[in-house]
Parts: sequence; C-alpha cells; structure tokens
Amino acid sequence: MKKLERSYIRQILDAINERTISFAGGLPNENLFPVKDLKVATNKVLENPLCLQYSKSQGVEGLREKIADIYTNKFDFPTNKDEILITTGSQQAFDIIAKTFLDKELYVQKPTYIGALSAYKVLDMDIKSFDDLDDLENKLNSTNGFYAMSDFTNPTGRVIDQKRREDVAKILNKKECYFIEDGAYSLIDFNGVIRKPISALYEKSFHMGSFSKIVAPGFRVGWIRAKKEYIDQMMVSKEAVDLHTSTFNQMILDEYMNEFDLFEHIKLVRKEYKSKMEYMAECFEKYIPSFEFKRPQGGMFIYGSFKEDSFELAKKALEVDVAFVPAKVFFHNNQDSNEARFNFTNSTFEQIEQGIIRLAKLLSPNNEIKKECIA
Amino acid sequence: MKKLERSYIRQILDAINERTISFAGGLPNENLFPVKDLKVATNKVLENPLCLQYSKSQGVEGLREKIADIYTNKFDFPTNKDEILITTGSQQAFDIIAKTFLDKELYVQKPTYIGALSAYKVLDMDIKSFDDLDDLENKLNSTNGFYAMSDFTNPTGRVIDQKRREDVAKILNKKECYFIEDGAYSLIDFNGVIRKPISALYEKSFHMGSFSKIVAPGFRVGWIRAKKEYIDQMMVSKEAVDLHTSTFNQMILDEYMNEFDLFEHIKLVRKEYKSKMEYMAECFEKYIPSFEFKRPQGGMFIYGSFKEDSFELAKKALEVDVAFVPAKVFFHNNQDSNEARFNFTNSTFEQIEQGIIRLAKLLSPNNEIKKECIA
Repeated sequence: MKKLERSYIRQILDAINERTISFAGGLPNENLFPVKDLKVATNKVLENPLCLQYSKSQGVEGLREKIADIYTNKFDFPTNKDEILITTGSQQAFDIIAKTFLDKELYVQKPTYIGALSAYKVLDMDIKSFDDLDDLENKLNSTNGFYAMSDFTNPTGRVIDQKRREDVAKILNKKECYFIEDGAYSLIDFNGVIRKPISALYEKSFHMGSFSKIVAPGFRVGWIRAKKEYIDQMMVSKEAVDLHTSTFNQMILDEYMNEFDLFEHIKLVRKEYKSKMEYMAECFEKYIPSFEFKRPQGGMFIYGSFKEDSFELAKKALEVDVAFVPAKVFFHNNQDSNEARFNFTNSTFEQIEQGIIRLAKLLSPNNEIKKECIA
Repeated sequence: MKKLERSYIRQILDAINERTISFAGGLPNENLFPVKDLKVATNKVLENPLCLQYSKSQGVEGLREKIADIYTNKFDFPTNKDEILITTGSQQAFDIIAKTFLDKELYVQKPTYIGALSAYKVLDMDIKSFDDLDDLENKLNSTNGFYAMSDFTNPTGRVIDQKRREDVAKILNKKECYFIEDGAYSLIDFNGVIRKPISALYEKSFHMGSFSKIVAPGFRVGWIRAKKEYIDQMMVSKEAVDLHTSTFNQMILDEYMNEFDLFEHIKLVRKEYKSKMEYMAECFEKYIPSFEFKRPQGGMFIYGSFKEDSFELAKKALEVDVAFVPAKVFFHNNQDSNEARFNFTNSTFEQIEQGIIRLAKLLSPNNEIKKECIA
C-alpha cells in the first residue's frame, strides 16, 4: 500500500473546535458571500431541469465565455472560451495538468502552496526547488515543470514584480518547460491592481483561477486557461477524474454574472480584507513586536518570522486555542523555520485581537499584556 | 507528453445535435429530477452562508449518516458515517481508490464500464480481464485489484446472482486482492429488489454509490463505502484531488433527504424506466427482430447483439442521426464485437420508436418499415 500523509492544515481544520481562534485555514469570510444574489441566480437556474443533468467535460459555455472575458479585459491576456477548461476547484487543476503533461520532475517556489505539494506528492512526482533565477535556468528543460504563484503567493503574500515576470518568461521561452501559474489571489489586490500573468508571455503555460476567493469556495468551481490544443488534451483527464464539474454550480455562477456585477462584489471583498489585514498588522506590532513581517498588498495572509521555531510554537498555540500554520509545512523538503502564516479573512476584529493576545502571552508569560482598543 | 484518448461516448455526446436521437449516453431523464423538492431544499440551505464555505474532506456529516443508513437498512450491510467518504461523482472514486491503494494491475469484467477504463488508463494502470471465475482465482493476489458491477452492469445490464456473489466472495477472501464494487444502478431494480453487495462479505473492499441515477447527476455527488481505516487513508488523496466535494450540493442533498422521501422518488424513477425499457424492447422485437437481447431487470440500458459489426453500424447510424454505443469501446482490449448498448431513459416513447425505425431502415434499406403504434 502507498504511504500518504494528510496535510497538516487539513488536520488542524479538523481539530479546531468552537473555542479555537483559527488563523490557520485559507477560508474567505462567509459573511461576504453574495448569498442574496446567488439565491436569485439559483432560483432562475432551477427553472431549467438541465441544470441538474450531465454536461460537457470542458464546462458550461456561458461561464467559459465570461472567464475568457476576464482574461481579455482585466488581465490584458487575450483569451477565448475554447482556451478555458472548468475544473472542480482550482485544486483539481494540479491533478489534471500533471496527469496530462508532466513527467516526474517539478520545480516549485520555496515556500509554496501546500495543496500543490499534496497534489503532486499523491502523483509520486519528484518535487524540487531552486535558490534564485540563475539556478532555476540551469534546472528547467522541455520535459519538466515549474509551478509558481505570481500574485500574493500562498503563503508569503509576495508579488512577482514586472521586471522579474519578464526575466522568468525569458527563461521559460529558452528552456521550454511546462509552466503552471496559480492565480488564486490575483483579483484580490487591496488597491484593485490586476497584473498581467507571466503566462501571457509564454505559450507552454497553464494559468489557474478560481471562484473560491472571489465568490465562494463551496461551489468548487475553478478553471485552467491554456492554449486550445492543451485544453483538448486535458479533457481526457478531466472526464477520467470526474466526468465534468457540477453543471448546477457552473450555471449558478454563470447566471450570477449575467445578473450581477462580479467586480462590484470583488471591490467589497478587497475593502473588507484590507481592513482586516491592517487590524491584524496593528495587533502584531502592538502585542508581538518581535514578529517580523511586511504588510501584504493583497491576498488573505500575513506571513512573518518569530524569534523561535514556529512549528513548536504552533503546537503550543493549539493548547491555548489559537491556530496558525508554521512555514515548515510549506517547504517541499519540510525544513525547519521560524516563519508562519496567519489568515486574517475569516476572523472578526475581536477574534484577531484576542488570538494575538493569547499568542503574546504564550511567548512572554511574565509580561502583562494590556488589551486596548487599537482602532 | 503522455498519449491519452477521449472516450468514444464523450465524443458522441459532444457530436450530437438537436436532430440526433441519442441512445448513447447514460443520461437519466431530466424530467424526473425532483426539481420542486430540490428547490425547497436549496432555499433552506441558502439560509446558512456556511453552505458556500470550504468543508471537511470526508464530506458533510448529515449526508454521510443518511448514506450509511441506506447501507444498513436497505442493503443489509451495517455501516456507520465514518465508513463513508463523499466523492465528486462516483467517477472520482476510481481515481481516489487507485491512487491510495492500487499498484499496477487491475482486473475488470468484459465488457465493463467505460468510465472505469478511462480512469484507470489515465493512471497508467495495467488493465486485464478473465474468462471465468476459475481463471479469476488464478490471477488475483494481495497487491492487485478487481473491479466489478454486481447490479445491472454497465453495459450488459446483467446481475450477479446470489450464488455467484458467494463464489466471488470466497475467492476474494482467499486471494485478498482489493475489491472495488460499483453500485451505480443498485437502487434501480424495476421490481424494487435491493441485493446485498459482495462487499458485505469481504473486508478489503470499496463499494461505490452515487446520487446521479437516483436524484440528479448535475450535483456530482457520489461516495465510497469502506472500512474506517481505508476511509482515513483515502482522505489524503481526496484532499489532494479537489479538497472536498461541493459543500453546497452535499447540503442540498442532505436537506432534500431530511424533508422528502428519497425512496418514494426512486419508486417513480423505477416505474418510468421500466415502461421505457419495455417500449424499447417491443420496438426492437418489431422493427429489428434480428437484434438479440434479454430484457434487463433494472438499470438504464438494453444490451444486445446485431448480425454485423456494431462499431461500423454505429458510425453509419450517426449519419441518420441516431446514436448508440458499440460494445467494442467497453472492452479493455478494444476487441471487435457485434454487441451494442442502448440507453432508454433519456428519450421519449416517440423518439425511441423513431430511432429504432431509422436503424431498421439502415439495416434493411429495401424493406419498407411500417410505423405503427406499439402500445
């Protein structure tokens, strides 16, 4: 039998109880889901029983058109509906791309998204990393792959800047490896900036997107943007893994975008997340000034460094009912680290302050922490 | 790059147009979907925004409880909620079971479900078959697997009888291979008989089920029933492939079963499908008496044998806008065959008669076919 381990994050999510203040998951704030509008869309969709029937492996046409339009008009990356494959959450994209195109070897950023690591490990892939771009150039070739997040990388929150995007594209065009670019957070820049993906500069690429962070994750609807030839090849894997993504959920999202303005909603999400991020940053600065971090420009996490091993600290934190993710689990080689990731989107202001005070007490049990209103 | 081919059925489904009378898919009748009741359930579920949030990899607890109850009370197979893993359609179960447990070698029935073949081929598995039970006994061992449908096998519609179930269980208990039993049609016996699965007689087994044929496929909700130890191991693969199945769709089905009687609905489906099957059988007997088949006791297909190669016939049939599936594609070794599968659930009585008349004309262009009312 094969040996597989559950992801540490999913284990934490399963372990948290109602007392836990959790900064661990990557959960968006459910109070921001556009439930009222989605209800309108859902009831409209239910007028046609075909919304509950089997449908095409590539995905619902209207939805693919709308996603293509986002690429063309928002990402400055001309795209048509035949270049979009709908997936069951963007998590499934890892599996489909790897099954269809990748051999053994894959390069990732260090640290990187834990879900990508899980998906590739289950496929027995050989996951590797690199130290700098020169190093990367020596390692890529036409049969291996490179996975990266360009915008608000999970976990670090970093953005690959324009100059570096061009450098990466230059390397890719020279080495001709498969490039997988994850855009899960690309539309959540706090100032509304939308950057052109590296994939727009390189043809042998796959750009992954998702409705999970901009509408709601419970639908499990994501997508892959790639050239048509690749989409056609991936459909074989797509139908093998789950035939197609829920017709119902695709049609609801399609109808929601027919009737309502998705980008008006995203504006609201950005604004709310920005204020949560700022509040968490202020709490860290006030209660745990030794925690070193930079305020992110977007996304859902604050990433920083403690003065001590974060894996041990995370275990102790669970005992005082606070959950966060130590960076160790984001490294493909499981290296020790003082760094840690804190999600700020799924907690109230009160919980953010309470949680960080609990952590501060854990770190300095003899110092009395004074709780004051920050804002 | 890997070489993968799209399934013939999905290609047909993509090729059919509004003129085509299609007996090709395995589509349930969308006019039977309990849309009104599902609408009530959906609107109830939407009162809680957590229906659109991420959820646990194993699946929504209430739904797992209800599925476990079906095993215990209907299949005479005692089961609790920890022995159920929710999957994104039962198609995903192939992928998850194989990734978690199987090595290279897998035995299947001949012919067998094409979706199983696709799922295993994408994983580069070595698919084999056997001629009779003695032969099977010589081939199974503790590291390989055996996949079978016991009830209304897709495509043949055959049922493995009680005596043979016990024989298979005896072999399994002796050889200790992994056993994957597909129950997609188990609840659609036209007389309401529900048979105890072979899995109930053998511990190293996985029983797959689905809401696709008994409620609606557009939700993409299926499940695996296995012992808890296996479920825990499969959760690693489940979270790697798509984190979890749509929270929304799981909660709708859970609420639907809270508020309405699933088995009252299934009764309606059985009755309707039985009358469609009988009508198609009468049409074959009348217009194409040379087509040899047995009336199935359940499921969604009539399977039989022409006097000529069915693959060639299926191609010609598409030209007169009739689609059905030649048996060749259900054989893992792609062997030639005169046999073919006809779906009767997704056509009207009128379409069934029209389609078979068109086929009859194709087979005997010089005979004048008289269209008369059969019923």
